Amino acid sequence: MSIGIVTPQKMHFSQPLPLRSGASLPAYELAYETYGTLNAERSNAVLVCHALNASHHVAGTYEGQPKSEGWWDNLVGPGKPLDTDRFFVIGINNPGSCFGSTGPTHTNPATGQPWGSDFPVVTVEDWVDAQARLLDQLGIERLAAVLGGSLGGMQALAWTLRYPRRLRHCVAVATAPNLSAQNIAFNEVARRAIVTDPEFHGGHYLRHGALPRRGLRVARMIGHITYLSDDSMEAKFGRELRNGQLAYTTQDIEFQIESYLRHQGDKFSEYFDANTYLLITRALDYFDPAREHAGSLARAFAAARDVRFLVVSFTTDWRFSPARSREIVKALVDNQAAVSYAEIDAPHGHDAFLLDDPRYHAVMRLRFQNIAREVGA
Amino acid sequence: MSIGIVTPQKMHFSQPLPLRSGASLPAYELAYETYGTLNAERSNAVLVCHALNASHHVAGTYEGQPKSEGWWDNLVGPGKPLDTDRFFVIGINNPGSCFGSTGPTHTNPATGQPWGSDFPVVTVEDWVDAQARLLDQLGIERLAAVLGGSLGGMQALAWTLRYPRRLRHCVAVATAPNLSAQNIAFNEVARRAIVTDPEFHGGHYLRHGALPRRGLRVARMIGHITYLSDDSMEAKFGRELRNGQLAYTTQDIEFQIESYLRHQGDKFSEYFDANTYLLITRALDYFDPAREHAGSLARAFAAARDVRFLVVSFTTDWRFSPARSREIVKALVDNQAAVSYAEIDAPHGHDAFLLDDPRYHAVMRLRFQNIAREVGA
Repeated sequence: MSIGIVTPQKMHFSQPLPLRSGASLPAYELAYETYGTLNAERSNAVLVCHALNASHHVAGTYEGQPKSEGWWDNLVGPGKPLDTDRFFVIGINNPGSCFGSTGPTHTNPATGQPWGSDFPVVTVEDWVDAQARLLDQLGIERLAAVLGGSLGGMQALAWTLRYPRRLRHCVAVATAPNLSAQNIAFNEVARRAIVTDPEFHGGHYLRHGALPRRGLRVARMIGHITYLSDDSMEAKFGRELRNGQLAYTTQDIEFQIESYLRHQGDKFSEYFDANTYLLITRALDYFDPAREHAGSLARAFAAARDVRFLVVSFTTDWRFSPARSREIVKALVDNQAAVSYAEIDAPHGHDAFLLDDPRYHAVMRLRFQNIAREVGA
Repeated sequence: MSIGIVTPQKMHFSQPLPLRSGASLPAYELAYETYGTLNAERSNAVLVCHALNASHHVAGTYEGQPKSEGWWDNLVGPGKPLDTDRFFVIGINNPGSCFGSTGPTHTNPATGQPWGSDFPVVTVEDWVDAQARLLDQLGIERLAAVLGGSLGGMQALAWTLRYPRRLRHCVAVATAPNLSAQNIAFNEVARRAIVTDPEFHGGHYLRHGALPRRGLRVARMIGHITYLSDDSMEAKFGRELRNGQLAYTTQDIEFQIESYLRHQGDKFSEYFDANTYLLITRALDYFDPAREHAGSLARAFAAARDVRFLVVSFTTDWRFSPARSREIVKALVDNQAAVSYAEIDAPHGHDAFLLDDPRYHAVMRLRFQNIAREVGA
């Protein structure tokens, strides 16, 4: 059953948010949604952290927009693996995003102009701090769990390092303890496509009445390739021609995969903000809890030893491969932390974390059933 | 020992070249180089086919340019695996390229303007036809071998299907029987980066005094990621910072891998032609010998059953993985063709075919020694 109609909310923060870069974000707003009911003990709250192209809109639909399902609607709802009949689920849009929280398209109070590329650089840790402040306002001292996939998984991990006493469980799906050189490389190409688009205007395109759509399209196409497995792309598109025969053209579409990618790029460039893309890919690049511990992930996770972990990876995910999840598991085991690890044999690559794999959902359901029992949800 | 100073040559063809698209290339020139001496029996000629970013300049250096080694100088030369003391080696620049043979930067005789994007679409088979004509002029009826890596390997394979009586041996390195959906996807993103660069002007940038360098840079950066293995990128760059500490910037370089990729993109955009990039990636996309045989690669290779094959792949090559080479081997075995297959355990990804791996070079040396004995070279 779907959660039905939901309504996003906003919370204003007048206290500036100090950032890891040394800068700070002045007064700001966060968009968020909640599903289910906070119990009297305030023990059943689960925070769901979002990835690059997502938002606080985790589940349900918006009034009058029947196709506006949240990005994890298959996982979160009444009777679903993360059961909103038992849990109070919170989705928060991270600052720097373009879906409601204060970000580069909003007005910089210092100039009266859109922030553009002057928006301060934000990190996973900054987001976690912002999320913690919002939970303070909601009166939630300790979360039953923090859950996230991909970049959201990094936030879930950062929670365990930064606020280990504020969560019981961490569920980190399809994520990594940091980006590999290849991951950074893909991000960098995407950023160069955006930054070198003449419509980018050094990041102040809004002041110029412009939008760097070409760059965003290319960035999204690159990203999309890394979200799918080679095999699933092959199964879905293979070498299928769009028009049944070759036209011998370098600029027009010949293969279905080209048509699909262009469509993904076009769609994305219509709604996503270019500066947000730069900020979020940088947050990915920067995340590296081992760095401050002389490169030792085990030492980094010493802080998190009392949190219980579920780590999930997908066999065909080549963006954040199972080997990267096993690094996390190893660091936790080294700390004798309680960790369960599920490596799901799924064909869909990185995107699998958003899809309906029955084994994956069974693992998630079981974990949240156990958490529910534990917290009396 | 290096082959020393070499001099490129040109050959003019007044007879138009009919192309697979149905169009034809009017009078054209091919740039080529030869190394070693054709023996009296004309039995020791080896054709080396080039890949995307290479040319007829296979080995040796140019007068007064000591750093101008050919792209396969480590493999081809006196005493090298392909020994120019025994073989007469020929490198031919393919039409559509930007290194001397007739291509999009040359003048279209019909307009008196640069061809630009009006240059006809060329395929691997068209290149092989052009190469065969040049060999006719050199008086070489039958080649001891055709050798190529990557896209060059596709040409070597196409030789065995198109002119099976004109070669004894085919050596196909780090190649594939066609591009996967993922391969096409990467090509398509690169093409979109070029075509949507405002300086592209529909492919007639030269007439506008412009060059789509931004698009070429991004295209090259994407390509480069696919040439290296994840592991070798990790070993070479990891998460190393360029300046030892983070600057928190979305547009400037933070990581060494970014610096490296930007440098590769910049260099490439200074010398490579954008229309050539489109043409060559399309030739890659189109190559698919099985297509005309109801999807059966085995049936396609029935024509080549009397050619002897060496197929070489590299374990960490994720662009053209060993599995793709095994498809070729399987099709040849199905035809009871003579095929040897070497899967080299090398860390360098696709680029390994250009590098000095001792096991790889030993396999190549042995094969060419055997060929030399066979042809009396």
